[in-house]
Amino acid sequence: MTKHPSGTSQAPLPPANRAGCEALDRIDPLSSLRMRFSLPEDVIYLDGNSLGALPEKTAAAMQKTVLHDWGRDLIGSWNSADWVNLPRTTGAALARLVGASPDEVLVADSTSVNIFKLLAGVLALPHIAGDKNRRVIVSERGNFPTDLYIAEGLNAVLGNRFILRLVEPGSVVSAIDATTAAVLVTQVDYCTGQLHDMAAINRAAKQAATHVVWDLSHSTGALPLKLNEDGAEFAVGCGYKYLNGGPGAPGYLYVAKDWQIRLSTPLSGWFGHQAPFQFAPSFVPAENISRFQCGTPSVLSMVALRCGIDTFDGVDMADVRAKSLALTDLFWHLMDQHCAAFGFFCVAPRERTKRASQLSFSHEHAYPIMQAMIARGVVGDFRQPNLIRFGFTPLYTRFVDCWDAVMVIRDVMTSADWRAEKYQRRNLVT
Amino acid sequence: MTKHPSGTSQAPLPPANRAGCEALDRIDPLSSLRMRFSLPEDVIYLDGNSLGALPEKTAAAMQKTVLHDWGRDLIGSWNSADWVNLPRTTGAALARLVGASPDEVLVADSTSVNIFKLLAGVLALPHIAGDKNRRVIVSERGNFPTDLYIAEGLNAVLGNRFILRLVEPGSVVSAIDATTAAVLVTQVDYCTGQLHDMAAINRAAKQAATHVVWDLSHSTGALPLKLNEDGAEFAVGCGYKYLNGGPGAPGYLYVAKDWQIRLSTPLSGWFGHQAPFQFAPSFVPAENISRFQCGTPSVLSMVALRCGIDTFDGVDMADVRAKSLALTDLFWHLMDQHCAAFGFFCVAPRERTKRASQLSFSHEHAYPIMQAMIARGVVGDFRQPNLIRFGFTPLYTRFVDCWDAVMVIRDVMTSADWRAEKYQRRNLVT
Repeated sequence: MTKHPSGTSQAPLPPANRAGCEALDRIDPLSSLRMRFSLPEDVIYLDGNSLGALPEKTAAAMQKTVLHDWGRDLIGSWNSADWVNLPRTTGAALARLVGASPDEVLVADSTSVNIFKLLAGVLALPHIAGDKNRRVIVSERGNFPTDLYIAEGLNAVLGNRFILRLVEPGSVVSAIDATTAAVLVTQVDYCTGQLHDMAAINRAAKQAATHVVWDLSHSTGALPLKLNEDGAEFAVGCGYKYLNGGPGAPGYLYVAKDWQIRLSTPLSGWFGHQAPFQFAPSFVPAENISRFQCGTPSVLSMVALRCGIDTFDGVDMADVRAKSLALTDLFWHLMDQHCAAFGFFCVAPRERTKRASQLSFSHEHAYPIMQAMIARGVVGDFRQPNLIRFGFTPLYTRFVDCWDAVMVIRDVMTSADWRAEKYQRRNLVT
Repeated sequence: MTKHPSGTSQAPLPPANRAGCEALDRIDPLSSLRMRFSLPEDVIYLDGNSLGALPEKTAAAMQKTVLHDWGRDLIGSWNSADWVNLPRTTGAALARLVGASPDEVLVADSTSVNIFKLLAGVLALPHIAGDKNRRVIVSERGNFPTDLYIAEGLNAVLGNRFILRLVEPGSVVSAIDATTAAVLVTQVDYCTGQLHDMAAINRAAKQAATHVVWDLSHSTGALPLKLNEDGAEFAVGCGYKYLNGGPGAPGYLYVAKDWQIRLSTPLSGWFGHQAPFQFAPSFVPAENISRFQCGTPSVLSMVALRCGIDTFDGVDMADVRAKSLALTDLFWHLMDQHCAAFGFFCVAPRERTKRASQLSFSHEHAYPIMQAMIARGVVGDFRQPNLIRFGFTPLYTRFVDCWDAVMVIRDVMTSADWRAEKYQRRNLVT
């Protein structure tokens, strides 16, 4: 390790060499958090926005749950290990990260299923369903596809009473008016990393007496969220990205306290009942966030997700945001400096307040370039139609990783080994 | 171990003592399967119909998935470990147990969510939705509550266009007519263990040009199922009971080949898309069972479920059925013989063809009696309002377990220790 140049408490930005990046890591207040993860030595992992890395304590927690709680205590663990409350206790642990009260967050099902629940709930509210002029669901052209697909599917069930209107990112606020039945927006664009102004959109919705369902999949754990303060009423999010909950981890949902007993759920499964174990013949929804549960909670997945959430213990999200911006600043700068000749174009917003914790670069050969990078141990991902995408996860991404990754990109481009036949084939998931 | 009385290939039934039960275990062709499970030594577990026991290989499989596939190979495992196909490959592994083709079964979401998908799909079929006379969803008064709750919730979304008509178990066939929009039946009653004649109900539905959504939660892995042969079109089932998939394991769904491209799903999430990773703006459903996926598959839970399904490797379901009936015969007989004085009444059907793999006994003090039994290591469960319920899982329940359990019941009743204050409190889950 190169020693940090003495005399400066502030490292020079941007660093001109690898040693400068190492110096940034040494003064990074979050640097010790990397030890909370089990990361392969030979990989630079810039894909934590697709699948978060494995927390150090997950394997032991899973073994304890499998061998002791399930294997030894069997059915009794629904009480003794408090499995029955995992959706709420895991949600409560997550609440701080999103700026909500512990009783406003529930872990359940998948993000897609949770969107269905909340959007259906909003569209069934008397002042929405009863207003013939409110027939427009406002969303974004660039929204993550599953959000749009779920809105389509729900609308079909509702007899296509609504029109799904897709607008440009900058036009969401102006698209909200008295015809708006609901707004469905992902706060951070999965391709560009562009960040919406949550408070502004919530204000516009409130003025128009309508409601927003937020998808926080690319926000949660990546930046500070203040759902209560910013006037958010309904939100869903993903457990397997920045929350490090494991592949296909359960999603979560947020319903502001005031709305919990007013919003109905179409997926009225037994765990959403006020008293599931009374086995009553008719559904009576719980009078709290629990009503948005449906089937039996997925215990093993929730235990893993809890370990992921716990990687944020004691971490100030303001520090996460500061490091995230420093990482994206650095990476972008290094790309400009070392890879300008290769035709990459960064599609993220220059303006820091509009940028989340990822960067995507367009390139006509994006797919094989990313494959060649992965072969050299730098893992990002490819996104249609021509993007290489990198996620920066402040809990374990180092400044030196940015340097090393950009050097690999330069190498891949200089050597042109991305032209190799083996990198042209499209995998199903990348 | 007592030696088996020589000279007889058929053990005497019913045995008069514990040694006779041990003799039955020795000639049981399934006896060696118990080694596929990790069971606590000091427990007689008769609750595998609520939460199946831990398979021997699950812990190692989970560690491999967590440490190697997730921890080491990270995002690449969606391809290299074939995570992306787990819903289909796990479903295919299960197909044999339910008498379906490998491409007719999908593991996804929870049982409750899957009921919603298939029931919504049936109600949206043109000849159902378009027929104003078809306004009745036929189900059973004693159906598992979540089935009824989901039907209620779906009906509410559909503007309460339908009437949920609940009939007695024996009246399902006669309730099906030209007004029937759909039939929603659980093949095995979770309280009484009564078994419906699947072929007969399917025939009645076909004659009336309507459709049945079967809930196989208490059937799958408990008895031979012949979905194709019996004319079943749609079914869902549970992964955490007889399939031993772990607490809150994903559910599964079955859609007969002919129906896969005709049935729409309201929960049109991205994994149900024909090409999820094209990120197309509009939903185009996969032209196979995959369309009934919704969000990202829950990998950790599916790996555990696969280990549970694999406990049936090489097992003939006819042997499972034979042993299941022998176990319930024995237990019932022993209860009659040793506990007749205590006021238990068995609510299961005497007739073997109508009985699944569980027995429930009513008793006015059912709750504290079950608590006292659990304290003595015999684990069954309590069901409202007054039932003690026992599940018999032929892969690991022994004949001698029946003997020992009945002796404990006798003891609990003779000593009257169920009257202790500590057993009166109601736990949330029992």
